[in-house]
Amino acid sequence: MSLADQALNRAACDTRDAADPLASLRNQFVHPSGLIYLDGNSLGLQPRAAAARVAQVVQQEWGQGLIRSWNTAGWMDLPRRVGDKIGRLIGAAPGEVVAADSTSVNLFKVLSAVLTLAAEGADSNAPPRRVILSERGNFPTDLYIAESLARQHGGMLELLEADEIPARLAGERGRDVAVLTLTHVDFRSGRVHGMAELTRLAHAAGALTVWDLAHSAGALPVDLHAAKADFAVGCGYKYLNGGPGAPAVVWAHPRHVNRAWQPLAGWIGHAAPFEFTPGYRPAEGIERYLCGTPPILSLAALECGVDTVLAAQPLGGMAALRAKSLALTRLFADLVTQRCGAHGFEVITPMDDDVRRGSQIALRRAEGAYAIVQALIERGVIGDFRAPDVLRFGFTPLTLRFVDVWDAVEHLREVMDKSLWRDPRFHQTRKVT
Amino acid sequence: MSLADQALNRAACDTRDAADPLASLRNQFVHPSGLIYLDGNSLGLQPRAAAARVAQVVQQEWGQGLIRSWNTAGWMDLPRRVGDKIGRLIGAAPGEVVAADSTSVNLFKVLSAVLTLAAEGADSNAPPRRVILSERGNFPTDLYIAESLARQHGGMLELLEADEIPARLAGERGRDVAVLTLTHVDFRSGRVHGMAELTRLAHAAGALTVWDLAHSAGALPVDLHAAKADFAVGCGYKYLNGGPGAPAVVWAHPRHVNRAWQPLAGWIGHAAPFEFTPGYRPAEGIERYLCGTPPILSLAALECGVDTVLAAQPLGGMAALRAKSLALTRLFADLVTQRCGAHGFEVITPMDDDVRRGSQIALRRAEGAYAIVQALIERGVIGDFRAPDVLRFGFTPLTLRFVDVWDAVEHLREVMDKSLWRDPRFHQTRKVT
Repeated sequence: MSLADQALNRAACDTRDAADPLASLRNQFVHPSGLIYLDGNSLGLQPRAAAARVAQVVQQEWGQGLIRSWNTAGWMDLPRRVGDKIGRLIGAAPGEVVAADSTSVNLFKVLSAVLTLAAEGADSNAPPRRVILSERGNFPTDLYIAESLARQHGGMLELLEADEIPARLAGERGRDVAVLTLTHVDFRSGRVHGMAELTRLAHAAGALTVWDLAHSAGALPVDLHAAKADFAVGCGYKYLNGGPGAPAVVWAHPRHVNRAWQPLAGWIGHAAPFEFTPGYRPAEGIERYLCGTPPILSLAALECGVDTVLAAQPLGGMAALRAKSLALTRLFADLVTQRCGAHGFEVITPMDDDVRRGSQIALRRAEGAYAIVQALIERGVIGDFRAPDVLRFGFTPLTLRFVDVWDAVEHLREVMDKSLWRDPRFHQTRKVT
Repeated sequence: MSLADQALNRAACDTRDAADPLASLRNQFVHPSGLIYLDGNSLGLQPRAAAARVAQVVQQEWGQGLIRSWNTAGWMDLPRRVGDKIGRLIGAAPGEVVAADSTSVNLFKVLSAVLTLAAEGADSNAPPRRVILSERGNFPTDLYIAESLARQHGGMLELLEADEIPARLAGERGRDVAVLTLTHVDFRSGRVHGMAELTRLAHAAGALTVWDLAHSAGALPVDLHAAKADFAVGCGYKYLNGGPGAPAVVWAHPRHVNRAWQPLAGWIGHAAPFEFTPGYRPAEGIERYLCGTPPILSLAALECGVDTVLAAQPLGGMAALRAKSLALTRLFADLVTQRCGAHGFEVITPMDDDVRRGSQIALRRAEGAYAIVQALIERGVIGDFRAPDVLRFGFTPLTLRFVDVWDAVEHLREVMDKSLWRDPRFHQTRKVT
């Protein structure tokens, strides 16, 4: 529904909120007063349940239960229990997902496994599959980990524009590709890759796929099995609302999971961790992708975050969240075009094809992108800057109202109309934006 | 001071507690009522400051500050800030330590770096240095990680008894050793390795050393620089009292730290994480051993734990803690010998040489070790069982009184004298003990 179909005022947004069947989900979160938070794609709002749950873990389970809580409070099962809940959001079956480590570390595990499988499965008459194929604009940590593994395995990391990938995989050209690794939703532009189609092309080339769900798990429907994906990782602190640095996600398709070691062969991934035997024997299933002792406080908070997304299930689940997300992002982009049209913003998130649009809107502006974001933050509108020239706004359908979108654009309009962003204090850089 | 010099009763223990200059440090901790906690070497008692600090992180920093807290609450600096504090306990200078990931993951990083250095530094006329040398009884995760890296680097993991290591390093025999990796204090027996001497032997052989401080950081004085150690890792949730699954420790000597990549090349270890540039450029210094986004809740709790150990500094610091630890373990071993002498316990922790004794006492018993530990746990005396036949008791000098030692042995005596441990319910195994 484009803005042309809507009344162009705040009252119309109020009306949409009043009719929103997901509106009550917002009450699950702590909303700092005076804030319009468009950064749930960087760190999700805090679930109201988290404070009490973490306090329980700290005071009861740790403080009173101490070491006994590994059994009595179910700490040993937590990576899998939280993993199973996340699995329901990404099309994975129970027992296929664990929550552990960071996205970077998990990517290292699965990419290593994939490269091992590619080497083992190599046909001696075929050229060796040495190429890790990815997208030039992929999130840096994904590229760094891939670069590191390419070094280690004597392979090479090849980076293309997204549109060039299908041709690279086609026919003879694809025969040196070991793995295609992509972030499902581009962190900068918000463009969504066609997971099923690219997986099909990769498989036709004889390659495997690794999907990073950092900006899609909890944000839009993901169906790893339907897409026939091979491996996936994801982030706990963005749309899963798991808290700062929450443990990440790792999934391997059952057809692969027991076929390879992953090199971070730590004791929690052992078949019998408490036998304390010297030789490594990996657990059957996804538990072999665990490594060291999990950070229980952070993992408990993550479970609260995942629960906020699962709470949408009786209201239509990820499909309903997706519909609202598309409406929010459409409204934002339309309002920016209409109300800030003179200020030179280019919407770089796909708008003509809803399927290709993630749960964010990215605006490019040649001058002042950083300062504009700072000026908005000072007014309580939290988005983020992504170098070199992108203003990024995330729209978490669990937490945001249509009226928030209206108000955010009004702030942007004022910042631009009054040139507030030119104030020198908005041009001082900080570590994180 | 042996038990022969002491009155053999509870009142004498009370007297020692009354004279203990470190006694007040115990007030820093939550003490569950009715518990004698001899498992601080598995999971430390909870610092009283932790509940409020974690609540502050959850409610204020996450709940209200949200993404802004990476700057305003100092989250970005936390791995280094906590690392610096830990550094003061292990003889590392400011800026040389970070708190991150798990011990297993950190060991993977430093062992990988060491193997890279060994390969790069190889003299083409010398035999390749392919051997990762360790101890047969080293903690399993250390062996698994070493085994994994040996596979990956075409090397081999060679496991010896501790006493065989010096001869293996001597002369021509040592010339194929790339790295000696040991846990400073054996997790099972509590025997302490001579870090400086073994490092000297390793260096004389042309090898490097990696020390796992899991059972020594916060438990006894460690001086990595004085020992001329090369790399170290450590655990946050044992004697550092950082909470379940607290982030771990990683240190590299300044002479090595910038010489190698470590393969877990994640974005937080990049020289400029927020430039989002595609090529990996490691940070200068120990920050290059960071990888993904740190779990802030768990990291904040770890800081509280480290602070409890630093609180001993005005009272004599690690040396004073060490003296008390030796007195506690001496008392326990003497009392077990004297009061439970008929029950077939063998003290396998070194008693004749204090330097070789960690902050624990391990008892071996051919029959019933598991069940005896369970019977003690039911009475509130928490130790742990380590397969196949070891009862392990940790003595955290920050938290324990001499009278606790007396009481624990009395419970053990009753369990044995009355054969309480033969009750079938103590023979049912659980996941964690």
